Amino acid sequence: MDTAYVIDTLFALFSITLIILMVPGFAMLEAGLVRTKNVSSVLTVNVMIYAVASMAFILIGFHLAFGTVETTTMSKWAFFMFQMAFVGKAINIMSGGVGERARLLPLTLFTVIMGAFIYPSAVNVSWGSDWIKGSVFDINMVDLAGSTVIHSTGGWALLAAILIIGARKGRYSGNQIRVIPASNIPLVVLGAMLLWIGWFGFNGGSVGSIATKEAADSVALTVFNTNTAGLAGAIVAGILIYLRYKLFDITMILNGALGGLVAITAGAHLFSLYDAIAIGAIGGILVVFAVPLFDKVRIDDPVGALSVHLVNGIWGTLAVGIFAADPEKGITLLGQLKGVAEIAVFVFSVSFAVIYLINKFIPFRASDEDQVQGLDVSECGLEAYPEFKRAI
Amino acid sequence: MDTAYVIDTLFALFSITLIILMVPGFAMLEAGLVRTKNVSSVLTVNVMIYAVASMAFILIGFHLAFGTVETTTMSKWAFFMFQMAFVGKAINIMSGGVGERARLLPLTLFTVIMGAFIYPSAVNVSWGSDWIKGSVFDINMVDLAGSTVIHSTGGWALLAAILIIGARKGRYSGNQIRVIPASNIPLVVLGAMLLWIGWFGFNGGSVGSIATKEAADSVALTVFNTNTAGLAGAIVAGILIYLRYKLFDITMILNGALGGLVAITAGAHLFSLYDAIAIGAIGGILVVFAVPLFDKVRIDDPVGALSVHLVNGIWGTLAVGIFAADPEKGITLLGQLKGVAEIAVFVFSVSFAVIYLINKFIPFRASDEDQVQGLDVSECGLEAYPEFKRAI
Amino acid sequence: MDTAYVIDTLFALFSITLIILMVPGFAMLEAGLVRTKNVSSVLTVNVMIYAVASMAFILIGFHLAFGTVETTTMSKWAFFMFQMAFVGKAINIMSGGVGERARLLPLTLFTVIMGAFIYPSAVNVSWGSDWIKGSVFDINMVDLAGSTVIHSTGGWALLAAILIIGARKGRYSGNQIRVIPASNIPLVVLGAMLLWIGWFGFNGGSVGSIATKEAADSVALTVFNTNTAGLAGAIVAGILIYLRYKLFDITMILNGALGGLVAITAGAHLFSLYDAIAIGAIGGILVVFAVPLFDKVRIDDPVGALSVHLVNGIWGTLAVGIFAADPEKGITLLGQLKGVAEIAVFVFSVSFAVIYLINKFIPFRASDEDQVQGLDVSECGLEAYPEFKRAI
Repeated sequence: MDTAYVIDTLFALFSITLIILMVPGFAMLEAGLVRTKNVSSVLTVNVMIYAVASMAFILIGFHLAFGTVETTTMSKWAFFMFQMAFVGKAINIMSGGVGERARLLPLTLFTVIMGAFIYPSAVNVSWGSDWIKGSVFDINMVDLAGSTVIHSTGGWALLAAILIIGARKGRYSGNQIRVIPASNIPLVVLGAMLLWIGWFGFNGGSVGSIATKEAADSVALTVFNTNTAGLAGAIVAGILIYLRYKLFDITMILNGALGGLVAITAGAHLFSLYDAIAIGAIGGILVVFAVPLFDKVRIDDPVGALSVHLVNGIWGTLAVGIFAADPEKGITLLGQLKGVAEIAVFVFSVSFAVIYLINKFIPFRASDEDQVQGLDVSECGLEAYPEFKRAI
Repeated sequence: MDTAYVIDTLFALFSITLIILMVPGFAMLEAGLVRTKNVSSVLTVNVMIYAVASMAFILIGFHLAFGTVETTTMSKWAFFMFQMAFVGKAINIMSGGVGERARLLPLTLFTVIMGAFIYPSAVNVSWGSDWIKGSVFDINMVDLAGSTVIHSTGGWALLAAILIIGARKGRYSGNQIRVIPASNIPLVVLGAMLLWIGWFGFNGGSVGSIATKEAADSVALTVFNTNTAGLAGAIVAGILIYLRYKLFDITMILNGALGGLVAITAGAHLFSLYDAIAIGAIGGILVVFAVPLFDKVRIDDPVGALSVHLVNGIWGTLAVGIFAADPEKGITLLGQLKGVAEIAVFVFSVSFAVIYLINKFIPFRASDEDQVQGLDVSECGLEAYPEFKRAI
Repeated sequence: MDTAYVIDTLFALFSITLIILMVPGFAMLEAGLVRTKNVSSVLTVNVMIYAVASMAFILIGFHLAFGTVETTTMSKWAFFMFQMAFVGKAINIMSGGVGERARLLPLTLFTVIMGAFIYPSAVNVSWGSDWIKGSVFDINMVDLAGSTVIHSTGGWALLAAILIIGARKGRYSGNQIRVIPASNIPLVVLGAMLLWIGWFGFNGGSVGSIATKEAADSVALTVFNTNTAGLAGAIVAGILIYLRYKLFDITMILNGALGGLVAITAGAHLFSLYDAIAIGAIGGILVVFAVPLFDKVRIDDPVGALSVHLVNGIWGTLAVGIFAADPEKGITLLGQLKGVAEIAVFVFSVSFAVIYLINKFIPFRASDEDQVQGLDVSECGLEAYPEFKRAI
């Protein structure tokens, strides 16, 4: 019994490390995707979120999410930290999508509220000690590592934020959509690959134990499927873009991979190899079509976070009800859909209200002048690459 | 028995994670070594290889390499993924050396064939279910983690590719060899260090089990020797370059480290501390002398892949027959040499034929104009650093 | 018993991997903080230190530090390599602070002596086979992972070096302090986050075993407290800077985090959650105030190493005597202070003497012309970003 406790603690620490590697992962990905004049501000937001959201979760959110849960199968500190490592991810998703125009002080306030209250509530009703159990709102969905609880949650908060904050200055004018190229492709690749690798801990660790033969098989299958869905998403996105433009667009290939990774997150422990390929491939397709669609309706998302995380968070949760439906165990498409819908209504409306309120007192949106000059100067007082001469 | 199964599965997942860290490792190293106008294309190739080669190996290659092997000592998914993590490495080695002039579509086709057929065949005759066992071609060499099976294999494929594709435009003219400096040294260092660390999983994981006292000692010795050979290669390369130029050339120091790491890969579990130092040091020396030699014969390899991987892949395999010869166990220099030679003949000839054939239909070599403009524009449609003003 | 041996070997390998991730961590952090003209030289120093200090420790230092210690609880190779992974860190701290003007050859010589003799001696009297045991100099302090043995040691050596080498040319003139901005903020963030994550292995691994329930709890608590102190340091530094300048300064936020991480390193296994927050927060405050203070007394430290590592190394060691005093177990503030003082006197005086001596024969300080042109050209013969046009 001690051996299982020890192994599961070590396994949790291994998973935690991989998940926290996603902090530089998100930071590098976003720093590479935005313009050089906003790179420091985007990086600061990522580090700030890790610090503030984690601390808010440690001091308030954890208790709200899990109550006085007892951990007997691994060290309680490992369990505590594993849960803490998740919280920032949901907010990272949100912050990336409002990059290049959201100011840092209101974003920090929202991070505190999201980390202390909104995210923990979503966790509580989905994974935690369920106070709505038995009621009509009871959520029974399968969501292993958070296609809904993390990715859609971040996505809905982001959608609320974009509706309030608006698009970047100059992005849409008349019928024109101005294409803004990524400023640093190596950082994009580095960040996406760190996220990809971090996902092994994210999904694998969410199985919760590796200490029996069955558990070890489940963890290994989860990690294998996670990776396979990422491969499929990358390949399919790459093929679609190549067929359309005869070019290899690495940002789309990587967004396809991330879309596949988000999609597999709800049920990576349940799928066969070919299911994982199908789910990841559809994830890649969804990203390729969603990115221009959001632009069409003028929802400005500089890093494609809605396409990757919201669309595929929903798809991945529903995919469990399609590929792994098992009514005897209560896994149904309708049950999955209900979970998606409840979290959507809760997170979107609460986030909207909170962002709206903060925005009344401390405006989220940087002024047009500050956006033109770049948020690095107005928000951070330091440029990301002060010695390089800028061409544009 | 369950405990061993659990621990070896966890150990495999740990090793897998480190090996996949080599994907951004190779990507950053190569992105740092080539000119800015080819950075996106090099990065795209690296991600494409991981996606396409892994998928080809999952769907076809694994079966070809291992047949219907039963895995009883760890989760089969962990074993499957561990083997999958290797395949891209061999192709990464090849793609790096044809950087700055090889087009992506034919490279992708070759990646499919390499991942599905060529590499798995090399694995099969060296490590797998040996259909040539007992015949005159039987390979008995010791090659723990692939000095030959991975590194030479990639190297021979690269040599075949360079012979067909030719040097970069403008690299050799008359008696002149144009020196092309690396464009981003921090990426070179980051990439090389990620490779170095990934090697611990590569070699350590290849021991196959950590679940007994003897196995744990073997894994720890393997990781220790791996690191030590890298240290020795770096130091010796640094000293040689300093003695010659009175300068500290970080690209050569790192290539020396990588040379030492490749050299130790065949027998890291067998060597004493001083053997490991000697093997790594000779690896570093070989790199320092091989790099100018390949240039002398006009084999243009922008990242030094032949010097690091082919030369030291051979050296490392032979080193087992020198430092760890044990005729009673069938470890002889001749046996090692035979393995090197057979893989050389097989991989070089098949790769040459495949690349030659693809090249007939879809030319590998980018046009002179595209090379001058950079492959990022012609192949990817996006620049790596669009906002920075270029000095050259 | 075998199972514990296996698990502790695996745990050591996991920790080693994280600690060696700190090599690219330090390298990226420092490369981002210095000017582009010195980036290659700073990177070269970091790689050189890993190679040379590790080898010196393997061949000489380990025996000096630990004598003929027998390792029965894990593979001796894992223990050997874990200890080896530490040595470079102390020298990294020192080299960062003399960046942009220290030449590489004398720095390499000092690295050999530090790795072979100075650091192992500090380890020996603090953690190792204690030949001064029972004497008046006996050090009884608690210093889990080296707030004193690593961080102060590096800091004292750095102070000695700065006193001998002097400030960068042009940094102080008359009453002016010239502010030199960091040249690459993404690298700063990447490096700091790799250090942060590496710290989990640094401190967690220093517990020495994870193989019982109590040990697993101790490791998990250590990692949890380590992270929490980093969070607190980042938050407090961020708040202080924001209150003062109404700006979010990411370099100060990260230095605050690193300060918190250094501070918790001496006793991370002993503290409660609120202690960890307090210790990390004070660490962040100390960094914010120490950075301008060192400038006031014209001690020029381009990466803030003295503020982060020396000041907080002292603070963290004393904090054990304040927050975890337990006279029955011999943990007292006085005992901690005595350890700090003895290591200070020993390391500072020996380092001063060695640097002074080396400096007599091979001057540490680059000439004014070389500093103006940048050390990359004079020391390394290659620029870090040769293709980018420089604005300053």
